[in-house]
Amino acid sequence: ALLEALQSGVVADNSEPATPGVALVGGGPGDPDLITVRGRRVLARADLVVADRLAPPELLAELGPDVEVVDAAKIPYGRAMAQEAINSALIEGARAGKFVVRLKGGDPYVFGRGYEELEACVDAGVPVTVVPGVTSAISVPALAGIPVTHRGVTHEFVVVSGHIPPDHPDSLVDWPALARLRGTLVLLMGVERIEKFAAALIDGGREPETPVTVVQEGSLRTQRILRAELSSVAEQVRAQDIRPPAIIIIGPTAGFTVGTPDIRAE
Amino acid sequence: ALLEALQSGVVADNSEPATPGVALVGGGPGDPDLITVRGRRVLARADLVVADRLAPPELLAELGPDVEVVDAAKIPYGRAMAQEAINSALIEGARAGKFVVRLKGGDPYVFGRGYEELEACVDAGVPVTVVPGVTSAISVPALAGIPVTHRGVTHEFVVVSGHIPPDHPDSLVDWPALARLRGTLVLLMGVERIEKFAAALIDGGREPETPVTVVQEGSLRTQRILRAELSSVAEQVRAQDIRPPAIIIIGPTAGFTVGTPDIRAE
Repeated sequence: ALLEALQSGVVADNSEPATPGVALVGGGPGDPDLITVRGRRVLARADLVVADRLAPPELLAELGPDVEVVDAAKIPYGRAMAQEAINSALIEGARAGKFVVRLKGGDPYVFGRGYEELEACVDAGVPVTVVPGVTSAISVPALAGIPVTHRGVTHEFVVVSGHIPPDHPDSLVDWPALARLRGTLVLLMGVERIEKFAAALIDGGREPETPVTVVQEGSLRTQRILRAELSSVAEQVRAQDIRPPAIIIIGPTAGFTVGTPDIRAE
Repeated sequence: ALLEALQSGVVADNSEPATPGVALVGGGPGDPDLITVRGRRVLARADLVVADRLAPPELLAELGPDVEVVDAAKIPYGRAMAQEAINSALIEGARAGKFVVRLKGGDPYVFGRGYEELEACVDAGVPVTVVPGVTSAISVPALAGIPVTHRGVTHEFVVVSGHIPPDHPDSLVDWPALARLRGTLVLLMGVERIEKFAAALIDGGREPETPVTVVQEGSLRTQRILRAELSSVAEQVRAQDIRPPAIIIIGPTAGFTVGTPDIRAE
């Protein structure tokens, strides 16, 4: 009935998730204070937490001693099986009467497989809700001083997964079309194949001088920032030994330097 | 020195903002629980709050009786002058010794003019920091049951401002290139000119049958959801009297219906 009500446009139900059940919670970019107020409250109610590799570890340290924590990165299966095993852990936990929090880095629906987990819960008849999070795709640039939009400079930004290279048959991304855009391109999970992405964009017509900023471990104290141009970024990433997790921002605002946001009076 | 440190890649300083000074805070999509933990804590320290029209009003109701609140929508100037007046309010507040919070809807850097305000503060020598927020561009679709990405379906999403129509000389957006993308397109501030955007995308080659979901007042109890196809969405928006603030999601995931996220056991 609620689904019908939502589809007919009557009401949004954003009240607290059901127990037993599953909540898919976005943990934000890494800094534990960048989870939402709801996300933190929901987490405090968890009986079982299934945590991503990129979920902020400090949030797990705050949990009570009786809360069971499963590290999803350590589930002993291959890549495809791991997602099956995660789905099973969520469903079995809820069926055992627990309130299960699936804690993810960033936002659950930005390359987080959140919808796959939601579908699995719905198929199993398990109550499930989503708590959006602050995506790394926008917040990591911001905390490094870069706005993804700026009036008169860029009125659009695109967020792309670098999980599949441009020349791969499974690629769903039209890189020549992306190369035509003049705004901001945020590339996630792309640092290991930065050569291919930079080449695809330049081949498609993006200026080789386009500013690029690469942020490793954004929002954390260990954050590292590399500033380059599109034509030289791959070489500099290797020279500076930039490693995942890293976010690559390409476009005119990536060259902004006034706005390093933690400038203080001192 | 901190700016240098950041640029040389040494450290990120995400500690609390300075007093007196200015914090640009993302308030999230509208539901007051979707502000970040840091955002709420920073807001609780404010002496002066300059609030956007789309900032969650419940957050203002929580402020102490001594906190001054300026409604930026009511600043009595024209559009361009209003931004000048907002910048002055931030700077003058900080110079008077106050801790000033600029509370915005969504994220400060997603079409929020946040960087303009940050630049103004930096130019004036006023300490300023940014607290990212949950952007409506991702969370409003999520709360309406739509993931902006889904493995095997779309590995990219683009967020575009509908403030300037495609045929306007000031448009910075390459609509023919956007029309070639097969992933998710999230259009903000576009409902009043939806005819022009839909036509530009179809003219550029996007399938007329592409699913579209329009969400008015997303995340709030007054939320309304309209499901359509690209060729008919403009007509239906008028027929259903969908009005701003509304977010338009275009692409295959906009047709997903399993995932209305507040499905419960009942």
